[in-house]
Amino acid sequence: MSVNGTFEALRGRLAEITDLQRTGGLLFWDQRTKMPPAGAEARAETLATIGRIAHEKFVDAELGRLLDELRPYEEDLEPETFEASLIRVARRDYEKATRVPPELTADIRRAGAMGLKAWQKARAEKDFSQLRPALERNLELKHRYVECFPPGEETYDTLLDDYEQGMKTAEVRAVFDQLKRELLPLVREAGVPDPAPPIELPRAGQERFARAVLEQLGFDDESWRLDETAHPFMSTAGHMDIRLTTRWESGMNWLFGAVHEFGHGVYEHDIDPSLARTPLGTGVSLGLHESQSRTWENLVGRSRAFWRFFYPKLQKAFPEEFAALGEDDFYASVNRLEPSLIRVDADEVTYNFHIIARFELEQELIDGRLEVADMPAAFNERLEEYLGITPPNDALGVLQDMHWAAGSMGYFPTYSLGNVMSVQIFERAQAELPELDAQFEQGEFSQLRAWFRDNLYVHGRKFTPQETLEKASGARLDAGPYVRYLKSKYAG
Amino acid sequence: MSVNGTFEALRGRLAEITDLQRTGGLLFWDQRTKMPPAGAEARAETLATIGRIAHEKFVDAELGRLLDELRPYEEDLEPETFEASLIRVARRDYEKATRVPPELTADIRRAGAMGLKAWQKARAEKDFSQLRPALERNLELKHRYVECFPPGEETYDTLLDDYEQGMKTAEVRAVFDQLKRELLPLVREAGVPDPAPPIELPRAGQERFARAVLEQLGFDDESWRLDETAHPFMSTAGHMDIRLTTRWESGMNWLFGAVHEFGHGVYEHDIDPSLARTPLGTGVSLGLHESQSRTWENLVGRSRAFWRFFYPKLQKAFPEEFAALGEDDFYASVNRLEPSLIRVDADEVTYNFHIIARFELEQELIDGRLEVADMPAAFNERLEEYLGITPPNDALGVLQDMHWAAGSMGYFPTYSLGNVMSVQIFERAQAELPELDAQFEQGEFSQLRAWFRDNLYVHGRKFTPQETLEKASGARLDAGPYVRYLKSKYAG
Repeated sequence: MSVNGTFEALRGRLAEITDLQRTGGLLFWDQRTKMPPAGAEARAETLATIGRIAHEKFVDAELGRLLDELRPYEEDLEPETFEASLIRVARRDYEKATRVPPELTADIRRAGAMGLKAWQKARAEKDFSQLRPALERNLELKHRYVECFPPGEETYDTLLDDYEQGMKTAEVRAVFDQLKRELLPLVREAGVPDPAPPIELPRAGQERFARAVLEQLGFDDESWRLDETAHPFMSTAGHMDIRLTTRWESGMNWLFGAVHEFGHGVYEHDIDPSLARTPLGTGVSLGLHESQSRTWENLVGRSRAFWRFFYPKLQKAFPEEFAALGEDDFYASVNRLEPSLIRVDADEVTYNFHIIARFELEQELIDGRLEVADMPAAFNERLEEYLGITPPNDALGVLQDMHWAAGSMGYFPTYSLGNVMSVQIFERAQAELPELDAQFEQGEFSQLRAWFRDNLYVHGRKFTPQETLEKASGARLDAGPYVRYLKSKYAG
Repeated sequence: MSVNGTFEALRGRLAEITDLQRTGGLLFWDQRTKMPPAGAEARAETLATIGRIAHEKFVDAELGRLLDELRPYEEDLEPETFEASLIRVARRDYEKATRVPPELTADIRRAGAMGLKAWQKARAEKDFSQLRPALERNLELKHRYVECFPPGEETYDTLLDDYEQGMKTAEVRAVFDQLKRELLPLVREAGVPDPAPPIELPRAGQERFARAVLEQLGFDDESWRLDETAHPFMSTAGHMDIRLTTRWESGMNWLFGAVHEFGHGVYEHDIDPSLARTPLGTGVSLGLHESQSRTWENLVGRSRAFWRFFYPKLQKAFPEEFAALGEDDFYASVNRLEPSLIRVDADEVTYNFHIIARFELEQELIDGRLEVADMPAAFNERLEEYLGITPPNDALGVLQDMHWAAGSMGYFPTYSLGNVMSVQIFERAQAELPELDAQFEQGEFSQLRAWFRDNLYVHGRKFTPQETLEKASGARLDAGPYVRYLKSKYAG
């Protein structure tokens, strides 16, 4: 076969695998937004089948043969070309995936599905002991998984690499230590205030207002959707088919949640369309993805300039609830440092300590310094230490998130890495676009979006997360800008 | 491998293929109800990929080997057992599928997709010549397809078999000739009246009322959905996940359409659940499927007893439109024999002549007695002959349906076969359940549904369409009951 023929054969296989992954994403979206409840059992089977076929096609020896055959071709190309990038990234993914024996992959999938089932019951009954065997099984499989790879400096490095390729535990620890050093004093100072009674807004008004905000940011019905779900997420069935979700609820999180998912969505939407149906056509890492959801949610969506434009509209949409409340008080109410129990509802500052607690527990688990049986106590102690709060039961404590039950370890830190990166990148945009605040006050966000597109989104997965971060922010991972931002916003 | 192991291997492969087919169905449902318009291009690729993988897995030689190996096992089993039925039906499907070379299958798919594209443009521009090359290509491929099979008595037999397995053209022709003989006089007598101005009902009221009716028939939110679409259909993502669609529009077809799709849905929902994830777990043929949609739409949904219960509710839901209209007049208005142009809007009697015209043209095409170029004129002549109407342009004539453009030939007659079978089966149910009318008048439909479940739905594809029809109706295909029913309802 000619080199061109070989490359097209590779590309065809990768397109098929990408289609399968997108299909899995759509099945998941449907499950969480549209599926009648009794469809759950069949859906679990279908999702498993699609995931398994995608995996089998990816670890197919013929794919490896094509990649081998393309090595000389790749070496003759500039590394930034589409062709070289596709071969390089596909080879890296392939080499990772084929290190894991198929039986182990199947065991991990099965254990994760069973863990999720056990988690739902354990959480409903506030009883950690019902989840314990599943977590022990997941942990045992994690050790077998780690053994498939050359040892890193720390065992946790291998776990982290699945979510933030190339990131080292030591680097994360240094960043998180800086957050602890610099931000814990702010948290201590805030204490644990009595929570304000949440505002209750009519559901139909929430949806209308959320759509109006999203449309101002760049959402349109041609290539986006917004639906309700219990645990919001973004799903993409293609870069022109972006699906946001939120939950209509008390407070203002229905809006911040929708804007958060818009950040994930606009990243996927604005990737170079020529990367579609390839493994390059998606966000480069969980951390960088989260940097964008956090940017739109917090750096844009909780900014003074944003509300200068939107608050009069919010007052008009909900006159009964907001007519008497001034912009300053509203702004303060959505930017309150307030230690609380639930990670996903936490403010910008304390959110990181929910993450750091979990990051530390994960390392202790994988290094054998913590037994699964002792997790509830360790979780509560850590939360008490950082936030001054002790969960009243395990459902609000160690059972709060599904990640561990599903078999994800190493995922949590990417949330706070996203926070850190968000300000690094945003400061660069601000430096190059000095009129941003004035634009936000006019409801104008397109220049910011275009900057993100050209400096970050467009690349997809062509470069490593580190290279991508440097292209967008001009620097390596650095907690400095984030700490300065939080201090200037929240320090008394 | 033990016989059990071999059987489980077969079952596992078939489960995977069924999951893929269900996934394709869900992708289609989403495309037609939820997908943002700009997602179309990616969706076409994804649908093609899922369809191709399902096909490749089905024609895999290993599946054939398992089926061969299971032959002695099958021969020792009673034919009605699950195991024997699964092996028998899978073998029949496999032998059909493997007769067609993969390249031809791919060509047919591609030509169908291109034909659909051309059809949309041709219809929008009322210009048949834009579709002509695609139809010629489809016809050429149909000939190559037919050549893959042993010759039937007529070429058309091979086409028909894909939609109504085992049915012969001659048998259909005899049934349709009887319809022409017995029913054309009724149509002639009706003439072409001026159409009544269609009633316009508020959209939200339509949805509320349609849901209320469907719930009375057996729809519930646990395992059903109802959504809007342009061309209504039913899709099932599993027997506990049934998705109906309808179109909110003037007249009453929004309701009859929803009830029609309910008939398709209840068939799928009530198949023996132990047949799930196998090729046995779906309706046995298009004709029998249509018999059920027609039963619920027409024999139940347009019956006097049905409206005795529902008309007061309809009047209450739309007092402005219906308060002054008596039940008799309403009943007459939804049971009017009225030759008209559009197949999908036709009444119970004239519908069949839209079908018969297409059935006859299809045979002439495949037998070389009609050129594609001459289709518009032939279509118009046939419609004039049977219904006394000539389409004013090709969009309302030969371009009305997408079937031919998509590459389907032999599909149309199953619609009228469904009508014929519907009365055969319903009369048996009436004989065994003499209280049906009295029940309908009370809004009680569960006994009828249970009868259909036990005598038809439960079997899925375990038996041939002919065997299934005989189990349900006690007879082979027979136009007599249908003709008697229409005559007693519509004869002046």
